[in-house]
Amino acid sequence: MTNAAYFKVTEKTIADLIDMLGQSGVTADREKRAAYSIDETIPRFEREYVADAVCFPENTEQVSMVMKYANEHLIPVTPRGAGTGLSGGAVPSRGGIVMSMERMNAILEIDHANRTLTTEPGAVTAEVTKAAREHGMFYAGDPCSGDISFIGGNVAENAGGNKVIKYGATGAHVLGLEAVLPDGSVVMFGGKRRKDVTSYDFIHLIVGSEGTLGIVTKIILNLIPYPKCVTDLLVPMPSVEAAVKLVPLITTEGGVIPSSVEFMDRKSIRNVEDYTSLRIPHSDAAAFLIIQMDGMDRRQLWSDAERIGDLCVRNGAVEVFVAEDRNARDRVWRIRKLVAEEEWTNAMPILSKEDIVVPVSEISKFLDRLPEILARHRAICNAYGHIADGNIHITVFPDGIGEDENLHELAHPMRRELYAFVKELGGTLSGEHGVGLKRKQYTDIFLNEAQIELMKRVKAAFDPNNILNPDKLVP
Amino acid sequence: MTNAAYFKVTEKTIADLIDMLGQSGVTADREKRAAYSIDETIPRFEREYVADAVCFPENTEQVSMVMKYANEHLIPVTPRGAGTGLSGGAVPSRGGIVMSMERMNAILEIDHANRTLTTEPGAVTAEVTKAAREHGMFYAGDPCSGDISFIGGNVAENAGGNKVIKYGATGAHVLGLEAVLPDGSVVMFGGKRRKDVTSYDFIHLIVGSEGTLGIVTKIILNLIPYPKCVTDLLVPMPSVEAAVKLVPLITTEGGVIPSSVEFMDRKSIRNVEDYTSLRIPHSDAAAFLIIQMDGMDRRQLWSDAERIGDLCVRNGAVEVFVAEDRNARDRVWRIRKLVAEEEWTNAMPILSKEDIVVPVSEISKFLDRLPEILARHRAICNAYGHIADGNIHITVFPDGIGEDENLHELAHPMRRELYAFVKELGGTLSGEHGVGLKRKQYTDIFLNEAQIELMKRVKAAFDPNNILNPDKLVP
Repeated sequence: MTNAAYFKVTEKTIADLIDMLGQSGVTADREKRAAYSIDETIPRFEREYVADAVCFPENTEQVSMVMKYANEHLIPVTPRGAGTGLSGGAVPSRGGIVMSMERMNAILEIDHANRTLTTEPGAVTAEVTKAAREHGMFYAGDPCSGDISFIGGNVAENAGGNKVIKYGATGAHVLGLEAVLPDGSVVMFGGKRRKDVTSYDFIHLIVGSEGTLGIVTKIILNLIPYPKCVTDLLVPMPSVEAAVKLVPLITTEGGVIPSSVEFMDRKSIRNVEDYTSLRIPHSDAAAFLIIQMDGMDRRQLWSDAERIGDLCVRNGAVEVFVAEDRNARDRVWRIRKLVAEEEWTNAMPILSKEDIVVPVSEISKFLDRLPEILARHRAICNAYGHIADGNIHITVFPDGIGEDENLHELAHPMRRELYAFVKELGGTLSGEHGVGLKRKQYTDIFLNEAQIELMKRVKAAFDPNNILNPDKLVP
Repeated sequence: MTNAAYFKVTEKTIADLIDMLGQSGVTADREKRAAYSIDETIPRFEREYVADAVCFPENTEQVSMVMKYANEHLIPVTPRGAGTGLSGGAVPSRGGIVMSMERMNAILEIDHANRTLTTEPGAVTAEVTKAAREHGMFYAGDPCSGDISFIGGNVAENAGGNKVIKYGATGAHVLGLEAVLPDGSVVMFGGKRRKDVTSYDFIHLIVGSEGTLGIVTKIILNLIPYPKCVTDLLVPMPSVEAAVKLVPLITTEGGVIPSSVEFMDRKSIRNVEDYTSLRIPHSDAAAFLIIQMDGMDRRQLWSDAERIGDLCVRNGAVEVFVAEDRNARDRVWRIRKLVAEEEWTNAMPILSKEDIVVPVSEISKFLDRLPEILARHRAICNAYGHIADGNIHITVFPDGIGEDENLHELAHPMRRELYAFVKELGGTLSGEHGVGLKRKQYTDIFLNEAQIELMKRVKAAFDPNNILNPDKLVP
């Protein structure tokens, strides 16, 4: 890849940007620049990298103008959604321009005949879901940060969440994308049509590309009928192994693709009890599953829930709590949400937060050996996540590391050993949080030379000057 | 793109290939070369292009050796599945080597815990479906040529078929791909894991790339529980408009995503009656729909079928025939299959076979104006296809064109006018048959300059010498 010698943003640059976007469309204010230069990644990149200017385009044409200008002047541009990312994907590692998409937040159209929702990238995910629902339809993307994340960020990261096992990650819902390429040209990939082999599939190349190939300015999403009924089972299990073994049986024996299967280990549950007033029944169980099913027919769903409940009991469940009404379901999911809450985890130093994926068949092997690997690095963890996808989130805490030691330095060898094991199991580095800045130095464990070379060449095909979100994803 | 000056296949080349693949792995026999140089495209490319050698590799290593050799010697390589393609994608337009994947036909593994089937590319699609079913699982890909097509060809073309509306095209079922790149290097994209954002999504870039980026040597497919019950409705409709209007209502009002919605116009039905002994009730109806629903619960499916049947009647259906048992369902689908049969359409000269897609909301507009466009080119057509995807197959017949006139020359201006209209409606050139050789000259109608440039650059990123399936797909 061209290792562009970037140019600095000067007062002239700011003036030029204001010419394009108006006074209110550009800021060089120090506090604002700092605020738009971090995301939710742990450890944080705070103060490490700061943008020289933040732009707030209001339409595709303005995005195109800025990109054309930046490309000609070799100024790096970092596109930014809501800043809820967990891998530093929106962090301006070379300074330059942060392009905030927050003003392009209109949900443009809901089309019943074609079952599509067309939106700008700055719409909050939950607003997209709500708009679809108001029209009796279902947007099945459901990232855990959906209440605050932008749909454009979901696309950039191919955000996953709780419902991937049944409905797929964000990319599975995208029918069309308008994007501005690094040279400012505007392209429309796909559309309201449901099949298209006229071109390479650039839609799914852009999805998950972390803003390194183009800036998405319009998204056409697939909608489906709103599932009328939902049931959740909360299932304490006697061992992690029993919990893991149960997961594929829900589908192969139970004949159901659940909408969610979430997993929480004992430490996750205990943390919730320690840091909140919530008391969870059977909190001494080794593992908890939440199994969610949805459908159009209450009777059918009830019969599914009964069958899956029986299956759980036959496979060792300590108990099966059934939550059918909204309140009971909210109580169940509150536990899962609290497990991932920052408020209390932030009270402790964290060595690393991981987003590992392994094949479902390998989860037991992975979780079995995990403590041993961590112990070698004086660390412990809690584990939870989207177990039916094999996507395990791990929060790694120091255990015996002195306060004066550098956590960042200690995390590195721990990660390399952990990832080598994940690779051995047929797994991968990140399922939904992205590579970004945080994980870039580890992709060599998972991709061979030919793959890394392809990544670089495809990046260069889209962005020969490497001005769009440099340092992210591409090794 | 590098316009490579290809080298000719010589006797030395053949000897080198035999060194790599053994005597039985290479042929330069004239009849065999001819047989491996055509597909099912109409009009046919017969005798127009002929390979200089046909290779039959038995494993990934052999594919890699041949590619490395071809890349070094600048010999074009055309990968080939079962030759059931409909766009000339497997036609060796520059001579050189045809790489037949027929000996790499092993279904390698069915993995219950991970719900995957791993196969070589030369396995017949129907065998894949059967193997999954024998293990109580469902492979949801269902191209119309599935009884003879290879799964590798389905991947190369992103084959669609009858069940895309519910289950997606081939790409939606692919979790992992092993591929040999043009320089002979072997890469594994994805795997048995169900989420992965560690790299650009090269899986879905390869799917539908018509063998222009790499040769797929192993495929990991997602399986789902086998739907226990299936019901088909055969619905004659009083007008094309009423039929088209009904399609989205099945989902938006009926709350069902059907597994298939197929459409046949009156001329399609009449052709079947004229050319076979089959008599179809209400064959004077303007249009027929086949609506298929599947599920796990007979009672639920029956209630869905009743609701959708009522919806059909309320929206003008002349009658609703319900086919629940295997025999009745086979009778319904026999009509649909006969509509697409070559045997009788081959009795007539054909101007063109089209694979157009428009948004579902635009189908009426499209079918309304179609006769007028065709009449200007002295042509008529029958239309049928996967209407819930907006994917309309059209067989265009001459109507008043003299026997001495050149059909190929006449087809060209007809297509350009037709496609311009399709583009205007937000549609596309091909939904599932591919661009290949046949449609390449028309992609400029659908892709803008920036998109065409991206296609070329991505092709060059994978295949800088342009030796892999040249002249296909990439404008």
